Amino acid sequence: MTQVHINLQQELDALELDAAFLLKPQNVFYLAGYASVCSGLILARDQEPAFCTLWLDAPEAKRVCRLSRVNTYVFPQQSLVGRMIGLLRKTGVPEPRRIGVEKDFMVARQYEMLTSEFPQAELVHITPVVDRLRAVKTPEELGYIREAAEIADQAMNAALAAVAPGVSELEVAAEAEYVMRKAGSLRPAFGTFVASGERTLLAHPHASPRRMQPGEAVVIDLGAVVAGYSSDLCRTTFVGAPSPAQRDRLRLVFQAQEAAAEALRPGARAGEVYEAARQVFASQNLQNLLPADLGYGVGLRQSEFHPVIEQNSTTELRENMVVALMQTTAYDRKIGGLRVEDTFWISQKGSVRLTKHRQDLY
Amino acid sequence: MTQVHINLQQELDALELDAAFLLKPQNVFYLAGYASVCSGLILARDQEPAFCTLWLDAPEAKRVCRLSRVNTYVFPQQSLVGRMIGLLRKTGVPEPRRIGVEKDFMVARQYEMLTSEFPQAELVHITPVVDRLRAVKTPEELGYIREAAEIADQAMNAALAAVAPGVSELEVAAEAEYVMRKAGSLRPAFGTFVASGERTLLAHPHASPRRMQPGEAVVIDLGAVVAGYSSDLCRTTFVGAPSPAQRDRLRLVFQAQEAAAEALRPGARAGEVYEAARQVFASQNLQNLLPADLGYGVGLRQSEFHPVIEQNSTTELRENMVVALMQTTAYDRKIGGLRVEDTFWISQKGSVRLTKHRQDLY
Repeated sequence: MTQVHINLQQELDALELDAAFLLKPQNVFYLAGYASVCSGLILARDQEPAFCTLWLDAPEAKRVCRLSRVNTYVFPQQSLVGRMIGLLRKTGVPEPRRIGVEKDFMVARQYEMLTSEFPQAELVHITPVVDRLRAVKTPEELGYIREAAEIADQAMNAALAAVAPGVSELEVAAEAEYVMRKAGSLRPAFGTFVASGERTLLAHPHASPRRMQPGEAVVIDLGAVVAGYSSDLCRTTFVGAPSPAQRDRLRLVFQAQEAAAEALRPGARAGEVYEAARQVFASQNLQNLLPADLGYGVGLRQSEFHPVIEQNSTTELRENMVVALMQTTAYDRKIGGLRVEDTFWISQKGSVRLTKHRQDLY
Repeated sequence: MTQVHINLQQELDALELDAAFLLKPQNVFYLAGYASVCSGLILARDQEPAFCTLWLDAPEAKRVCRLSRVNTYVFPQQSLVGRMIGLLRKTGVPEPRRIGVEKDFMVARQYEMLTSEFPQAELVHITPVVDRLRAVKTPEELGYIREAAEIADQAMNAALAAVAPGVSELEVAAEAEYVMRKAGSLRPAFGTFVASGERTLLAHPHASPRRMQPGEAVVIDLGAVVAGYSSDLCRTTFVGAPSPAQRDRLRLVFQAQEAAAEALRPGARAGEVYEAARQVFASQNLQNLLPADLGYGVGLRQSEFHPVIEQNSTTELRENMVVALMQTTAYDRKIGGLRVEDTFWISQKGSVRLTKHRQDLY
């Protein structure tokens, strides 16, 4: 068993779990080094973890997967969770009392299968446990995130170069994604955001057919994926020159990001990092424009749920976490939602910016 | 209320449901004309459907959504389903006895919220009901799918032109996706498959860094999205000339597709379409290479679960359904998993191929 499995098993033991079902592809990948569209992992007390996947994907799984126990199920005769229940029963844990599941991922049908198979068992939400383990990166993981950050930098150059009056948001996304693919990104880390004009105020502004108009702000948010690991980079530009109000707001967002990055160090609380950014906005009496969350972890997703940089959070930041700041922004209906975001590594000495692209402050 | 809502309400009434929660983005989009990453729909007996979304996305939702009742929730203080439960209680259905949910999409946490709020209620799986409604397309929907099919044709030309010894699968995907984005595709309909050599045997071979070698088969499967609607197109090519065995297999797959397309007409059973393809393989005594499913509906996803063209299925095909054939293939470890797939519209007179790209049969 690897260190990761030993750490997880200790956490599961502390929760007094007899078994756990992992289905979230990022969690399966984290523990097995491989995940397909339809795969899962069973952890049972005192046993090697068992991997299960669609029979058609077995050859690749057996080649790539770090685990020695690779099982398959045949669709449509079997289901993934049905097969996993069978494996659990066969291998020494026929009647688990407490079962860990990802309650933010397991769907109702699978949940009902488990509760009807094991009516006495209590199902325990274990996503936060795995999230906490995933948050602290190994040198290998950091290397992949660095590579993904470099690709994002290149893609941002291509995207910014495409911004012009009359160009559609989709065309800007096309340039960015082309560069990422060519540079070896396995996929976009998320549906690329390109938001112009009033669309900058949306929470998830995936690129649309909208054409940019002179004077508008354009927010571009993108990420690459290397060996499963993401980067996250956001820049704001303008179609032509920004107005003084736009320029001042962008500078303020940038200052808030700098202040937060300064506060990002091992031992700090997430709420302190939030507070550093909030203070910058409060100096202009604009703190009410900020949402309650400003940053998220980065790893197998561009937006992980540990740590979350949110107001009053007592979550302790640790060395080798990776965080994107600021993933949300100041929402202002008059000026728009101008954003600046970079991927930061929390080193022993403080935060290090992994995305190197320079935000033009006009 | 639109015809779609009236049809759905009739189905829900037939199931004696007091209310239904729809969360799957495609279902929300289908009924509301708009869906965000975090949105849902409540249907309650004798009431207008109510839409609910993240407060930040409300301006766009109010502009685009077809429904008059647009509600919001504030994250992280509220949750989507928590807010939807509140709305249901307030609006005349405080104690529903039977509630429709998508058991293949609603996650355990949401399911537990519902069962703890309404401990007396029975939760009924309604995904198949909505899938059946979605399967029959309006002229407007068919128009979008046609456009998406045209874009896929263009992208396939670009992808095939990029295939050469030493080129990576990712580079081929880059060319295809660039063309799709530039032509107005909102996103790839699915993670583009580019599979070379042994990877052609995988069920979901997303493009990888693998470089193609002379003599290998290369399977390219892609789709575009126009106004939410997908296309699906797959072609097999070779790095250099195919071997006689590869060429003969590709021709056989193509013949099976043609036979299935011929059988695809209003009133036919899905199992008859499967059987037409199977007969072609059986003529060479190769029927055991085929999986139990060969095709799926196409619409708001490239792979919808009604109709499914599978062995022995009695599902009746209807006019204005759209189906991709053959979405799976003949799995042969010696020759690889050569595939041919097109998007077909079931017209009154029989099937019409919407993707026009010509499969080179060598």
